[in-house]
Amino acid sequence: MFLRVSSRRLVGLNRFFHSTSNLMSAPRFTPASRVASFDTDVWSIFTPLAAETKAINLGQGFMNFGPPAFVQEAAKHAIDQVESNQYSHPRGRIRLRNALAASYSPEFGRELNPETEIIVTAGANEAIFATFAGFLDEGSEVICMEPFFDQYIPNITMNGGKPVYVPLRAPADSSERTVSSHEWRLDIDELRSKITSKTKIIIINTPHNPIGKVFDEEELMAIGKVAEEHDLIILTDEVYDRLYYPPLKKFPRIASLANFWERTITVGSGGKSFAATGWRVGWLIGPEHLVKYSFAAQTRVVFCVNSPCQEAIAAGLEASLVKPIFQEQTDEYLKKRGILSAVFDKLKLPYTVPEGAYFILVNTAKISYPKDYKFPELLDSRGEDFKMCYWLTKEIGVCSIPPSEFYVKEHWPLAKDFARFAFCKTDDVLNEAVKRLEKLEQYIKK
Amino acid sequence: MFLRVSSRRLVGLNRFFHSTSNLMSAPRFTPASRVASFDTDVWSIFTPLAAETKAINLGQGFMNFGPPAFVQEAAKHAIDQVESNQYSHPRGRIRLRNALAASYSPEFGRELNPETEIIVTAGANEAIFATFAGFLDEGSEVICMEPFFDQYIPNITMNGGKPVYVPLRAPADSSERTVSSHEWRLDIDELRSKITSKTKIIIINTPHNPIGKVFDEEELMAIGKVAEEHDLIILTDEVYDRLYYPPLKKFPRIASLANFWERTITVGSGGKSFAATGWRVGWLIGPEHLVKYSFAAQTRVVFCVNSPCQEAIAAGLEASLVKPIFQEQTDEYLKKRGILSAVFDKLKLPYTVPEGAYFILVNTAKISYPKDYKFPELLDSRGEDFKMCYWLTKEIGVCSIPPSEFYVKEHWPLAKDFARFAFCKTDDVLNEAVKRLEKLEQYIKK
Repeated sequence: MFLRVSSRRLVGLNRFFHSTSNLMSAPRFTPASRVASFDTDVWSIFTPLAAETKAINLGQGFMNFGPPAFVQEAAKHAIDQVESNQYSHPRGRIRLRNALAASYSPEFGRELNPETEIIVTAGANEAIFATFAGFLDEGSEVICMEPFFDQYIPNITMNGGKPVYVPLRAPADSSERTVSSHEWRLDIDELRSKITSKTKIIIINTPHNPIGKVFDEEELMAIGKVAEEHDLIILTDEVYDRLYYPPLKKFPRIASLANFWERTITVGSGGKSFAATGWRVGWLIGPEHLVKYSFAAQTRVVFCVNSPCQEAIAAGLEASLVKPIFQEQTDEYLKKRGILSAVFDKLKLPYTVPEGAYFILVNTAKISYPKDYKFPELLDSRGEDFKMCYWLTKEIGVCSIPPSEFYVKEHWPLAKDFARFAFCKTDDVLNEAVKRLEKLEQYIKK
Repeated sequence: MFLRVSSRRLVGLNRFFHSTSNLMSAPRFTPASRVASFDTDVWSIFTPLAAETKAINLGQGFMNFGPPAFVQEAAKHAIDQVESNQYSHPRGRIRLRNALAASYSPEFGRELNPETEIIVTAGANEAIFATFAGFLDEGSEVICMEPFFDQYIPNITMNGGKPVYVPLRAPADSSERTVSSHEWRLDIDELRSKITSKTKIIIINTPHNPIGKVFDEEELMAIGKVAEEHDLIILTDEVYDRLYYPPLKKFPRIASLANFWERTITVGSGGKSFAATGWRVGWLIGPEHLVKYSFAAQTRVVFCVNSPCQEAIAAGLEASLVKPIFQEQTDEYLKKRGILSAVFDKLKLPYTVPEGAYFILVNTAKISYPKDYKFPELLDSRGEDFKMCYWLTKEIGVCSIPPSEFYVKEHWPLAKDFARFAFCKTDDVLNEAVKRLEKLEQYIKK
């Protein structure tokens, strides 16, 4: 069964695209040059599209289930207190900073100081923005691995910086066979070749979105040594750090290797760790001589972070010290990964098995949609993968995300055969998605 | 009774000041030049000082009471739903945007479009940051009235802009008599004289923090005409818009006058309106051709805003459409203003009677503290008013805020005789503050 949409609905969609796709200047009030060129972000295209077409949304990585019940209760308890409805300390509430120190000190292999080495942020996104604000000057360069989480780039350019790209490369035969995310590799000499006198920061993302790669100690050592050679700051985005799968037994952190602590800022996420992406509670951890500048910036950008949800995340972390809640959560996600990946096995569509996070990157080269299919004009200016994801959403009823959003424009062709599916959904929703995806059979080139 | 502090406690305070007062560069990791010079903000000095010395904190403007019970219940209800714990639309949850449209359309005298003219932000602070990010280029100038809310300045400079100052002047005899905040005046020719080819934005704050001034229609018309003459954007910070006192019957909004709507972005605050400063839910309202750029920036800075608290603020606004909750709140604040101002009357300390917001600016010139009083070194680099506020906190047991924080350094002397006291506190706390302030009698010069 294909989803049918009335022509009226199509008109509605086109109007949506039209009205937001183009940040044209108003007659007289010209925007900042750094912001004027921002295009509609991928989420603002596919999230409404999924809703409009009643597709199952495996696009954006939010859960269709809530936080653990005891964490919800802790949030409600905090709402009942006077003090936890008012401003928090700009560094974060002391209960949360203490809980973060208790939870992360063993992970980092050092006693973290909650007064000086931990800053609570308005989501991990704002932690990254504030760090770029704290360190970049006009023309400062930041090394980003492609594919990258899309927000990094405007976060860099809004602060005067320049992103410089180095690819993570899939194995040459990844369009032929299912691979492990670990087989996507960074060429360390290629990384080194991108460094100039203006390079200031290398950003790492592990577990990696959208690949699912968890960088191993050897890879992190190699990156860290390059950072040392050139005296660079390492910004490591570890928002999926509580979600990594067997056979991995331990999540390697670059901040705990060699002497890299002193040059590393680690970013984490309460929303990812506790199924509460809408709470906007994140954090950054690092030596005082670094995080104090992220903090100086963030105090001015948001001043402080939602107070009651900080208390609730603190309660969650406190519980994790005495109960294996992250292990249980991982077990559940592992099952979900299995449900979704089974359909791609069945369809013989190659994909990347993620070592961490909750995304499956599927190679869509074998899928052929009707040649005369009509796409909205908006998609003409985007990567080819936008068309595949649009068609999958509208005609198969499952929304995924086109990963060209995670590449610089020149490299969009690298993403043309991929789609990213999120499995942070209840099993029944995943099962329904599988049922719909099975209909792809007739579109698969043999 | 004076509060006594042990020398150990003093050492603790000095260490606090020392460790955060100076954002010195680390050996190698140099910060962004725009952030390197940030000094410790006033809140990070006085809030811990108040806690440490057990002073009554009338410094920072947060309530020592919670949001209305039904708003708290709405927050708890939202926490119980799956969907309102996950990402919101970056523009804000539709329920909140609809409630804002319903609440503000009559205020603005036009039908506000919740799809395009209202953006929910991570507090009003981030609304202002995002607007500067959306419009300022290197060297763009922003006209700020002194005294200004302290965050404006780093929000401007972090985005490459340059603040240009024009004073609000107190009546000449304001050290002799209690005045109305309305007597603080802007010289419109002086404002005009500050405009250059680089001026892009005028920022207005009404009701004004710390003065309490509510700009009247005539003043707003004059400012608006200057903006029209030079084709400037008006950014009006109206976070205290629900708190204005008799004899004022209506709160004048520049966005509703003449044709100023098309050049005006109005900022509001859920925290200020519903006694929930720690929820970090604010908004901006304006024509699509302007707010789309604030939105483009904010989507990259924070992506979206705390979801459950958005639902709760929506519930609060919905209730305000059918019940006089803002009127009742104003009545309560008016009583609080009366409790606190009575002690200054009794002490014969002149002050400014605020027409709006919840601050009283007191002229402290008649208070003389002991000549040999020992202040921490940190205060040497600050305005004279920091010493008065420090002494009041430590020896009288009531914390206020030195308003030189709201002036550019060259103009610190203008603030030297003032202290800002917040009255957004329960009556019992205000009464205790009054009792302590009565002890000032012996320090008042006759």
